[in-house]
Amino acid sequence: MTTKQDCIALDAQDPLRALRKLFNIPANTIYLDGNSLGVMPAATPARVADTVAREWGTDLIQSWNKNGWFAMPQQVGNKIARLIGAGANEVVATDSTSINLFKVLSAAMNIAAADAPQRKQIVSERSNFPTDLYIAEALCQQHGMEIVLVEPEDISASLTANVAILMLTHVNYRTGAMHDMAAVTAAAHAEGILTVWDLAHSAGAVPVDLMAAKADFAVGCGYKYLNGGPGAPAFVWVNPLHTDRFWQPLAGWWGHATPFEFTPDYRPAAGITRYQCGTQPIISLAALDCGVDTLLAADAHGGMAALRTKSLALTDLFISLVEERCAAQGLGLATPRDHAQRGSQVCLTRDEGAYAIVQALIARGVIGDYRAGDGDRHKDILRFGFTPLYIGFEDVWNAVEHLRQVLESGEWQRPEFNKKHAVT
Amino acid sequence: MTTKQDCIALDAQDPLRALRKLFNIPANTIYLDGNSLGVMPAATPARVADTVAREWGTDLIQSWNKNGWFAMPQQVGNKIARLIGAGANEVVATDSTSINLFKVLSAAMNIAAADAPQRKQIVSERSNFPTDLYIAEALCQQHGMEIVLVEPEDISASLTANVAILMLTHVNYRTGAMHDMAAVTAAAHAEGILTVWDLAHSAGAVPVDLMAAKADFAVGCGYKYLNGGPGAPAFVWVNPLHTDRFWQPLAGWWGHATPFEFTPDYRPAAGITRYQCGTQPIISLAALDCGVDTLLAADAHGGMAALRTKSLALTDLFISLVEERCAAQGLGLATPRDHAQRGSQVCLTRDEGAYAIVQALIARGVIGDYRAGDGDRHKDILRFGFTPLYIGFEDVWNAVEHLRQVLESGEWQRPEFNKKHAVT
Repeated sequence: MTTKQDCIALDAQDPLRALRKLFNIPANTIYLDGNSLGVMPAATPARVADTVAREWGTDLIQSWNKNGWFAMPQQVGNKIARLIGAGANEVVATDSTSINLFKVLSAAMNIAAADAPQRKQIVSERSNFPTDLYIAEALCQQHGMEIVLVEPEDISASLTANVAILMLTHVNYRTGAMHDMAAVTAAAHAEGILTVWDLAHSAGAVPVDLMAAKADFAVGCGYKYLNGGPGAPAFVWVNPLHTDRFWQPLAGWWGHATPFEFTPDYRPAAGITRYQCGTQPIISLAALDCGVDTLLAADAHGGMAALRTKSLALTDLFISLVEERCAAQGLGLATPRDHAQRGSQVCLTRDEGAYAIVQALIARGVIGDYRAGDGDRHKDILRFGFTPLYIGFEDVWNAVEHLRQVLESGEWQRPEFNKKHAVT
Repeated sequence: MTTKQDCIALDAQDPLRALRKLFNIPANTIYLDGNSLGVMPAATPARVADTVAREWGTDLIQSWNKNGWFAMPQQVGNKIARLIGAGANEVVATDSTSINLFKVLSAAMNIAAADAPQRKQIVSERSNFPTDLYIAEALCQQHGMEIVLVEPEDISASLTANVAILMLTHVNYRTGAMHDMAAVTAAAHAEGILTVWDLAHSAGAVPVDLMAAKADFAVGCGYKYLNGGPGAPAFVWVNPLHTDRFWQPLAGWWGHATPFEFTPDYRPAAGITRYQCGTQPIISLAALDCGVDTLLAADAHGGMAALRTKSLALTDLFISLVEERCAAQGLGLATPRDHAQRGSQVCLTRDEGAYAIVQALIARGVIGDYRAGDGDRHKDILRFGFTPLYIGFEDVWNAVEHLRQVLESGEWQRPEFNKKHAVT
């Protein structure tokens, strides 16, 4: 049996422990929701204040040149590229994940229309994050295509000659299950199918190597493991094989070859810059830059490989402590035990009370979240994210101890924990 | 002849003068570029710092409910609605102007396809802001439509039975010329044509009454006269007649009727909420909220009508001082003299040296900007924006005096003033 002392000892030995002080962890809080909104880096308030008061407040419009605002989407993109196995000048930080997905799906549909017009299907997972499905559905309607939703074990069989695009989220938001990007991409390519990857729960959380996997398109989120702040700009990557073949219909001036010549006709910029559209929210982009910098500070401590090792140790510990200390409390495990199939979160299921249990934990300062199920296949979920940058092993012990108390005491059955909020 | 003393006296009598102290005007600067990037309100740094350090840093994910992040696009939208003659719950602050234009043009094209499928043209102005033309061009390619670009005097004649949509920017970014929104909309409607208005240079600058004009769709910018900060989120308005008829293809989860039920199928929210797509950059949105609040502080001093009166007095003064004090310097006037046709900026032309003259003025702390021409019809432009919230009459005097000195001395011919920057 693991003890609290064991956990404290693990923290003492943790080579990444020094990174915790780079973050502002609120008092009396065990924050297991970094997969929804990452914690604020300690450096962010000063960085944002400088962007606001000096760059905007004093330098005003001159900041586009003087303070490098113009190149920020590319510069932040280049930093993100290092986390996802992309090359320099292949990523821009811009817009939202949904909008970037619209861009890359549009481009992928254009490629498919040119190269394999008989292919009319997009395959995705039924439990993919809904916005990805909504965007694909809207584009399918426009392009006379069809979206086919399957369970993860049926993906392989669904890759037929009718399929143009396989669109997957690398780490599932509900279960934390991770696809083998290289193997799935190879299987798709063997059938002549393009791949679009959503890295929302991967970038900064698990090792990603888009170029090694020969992926075609990817998008991802700035406000989860990149710690970019609420609603931080997202990012988009396109394999250089495809970048210059088509442009995308969100053809705004920031994707133009020469935006400040103000020509009436659209001429797309070379490379990933054509995946920009309008002016970006610079203050939020500065916060994202700071978040990515803070993550890259892990490079001095073993980088993404060390983060992955610790992430798996944290999620292994959480699973084993829940099973040891909350046995017979009706909890199930939705997240794969196999390391190769696990992201950086653990999802528990319970037939009754998942929402209220999460609320009771939040009241105790253990912040996870709840995701509603839709039946036997997808049960209600208690979702806990483990960001190895700032979560420790003692945190895991304490979180499970709170969970044990909430369940054993029946505390979660109090009426106040059943009140619904707009955002869950 | 107007004297500097006259200008100082006008400032002393200005009922809006008190508003100037709500802004952080940099020392030794006459900022005539609020039509590109508005000045920072004095309250913004504290507001942004609170959003970052308390809301994000301390309350973290709970801020979506506790600190009202969830409803911010609507709440800021409702404030903007008051400035543009829109009703409550008809505007959301979200994404960029380019992306919002994509949404409303898509919706307008869907309406046209349903109601008048034989209409295959979009009419716009050749000198409309280029990103508007690029977005329309991309959508026309997708929808088998055609964009027809005309000069402003030819708009009326171009409104034929082939036209589905008239897309105009209310105040032209190059010339400051303003359309009569009500008259143009009525002329379009008389021919069965929908109208899409870009209010980038209007919202907060001139009185706008979308509902009185019976306009169909509008978008606008948060970082110009709304003082929302660099790349602030934009806004979108749809006439309630149309809002629920179609949705738009950027059908992300934030436009869903119940986003936190995470259903796999898209069901658009009622009303303007369906014009949202992904998660918004909350830090930048907080800065926009603060900018709009600062503008609404003018309500206690006569509001938009008083701002308009002062704006016209400022631009009249600038025109007359340039003509009095810079006569025979080769300057022309691109902005209409007729008040009914003028926005809140004045654009001068010069056959030679427009770019260098602007750079020489910037070196003296008079910040305007340059827009390249494309021949006789559209000459190179020296562009000066007059934001009545924080620009005074003495500022106008001093700006013209600098312009006089730059021209008379030939100072603008120095080589350093011909160096090009990425962003002009």
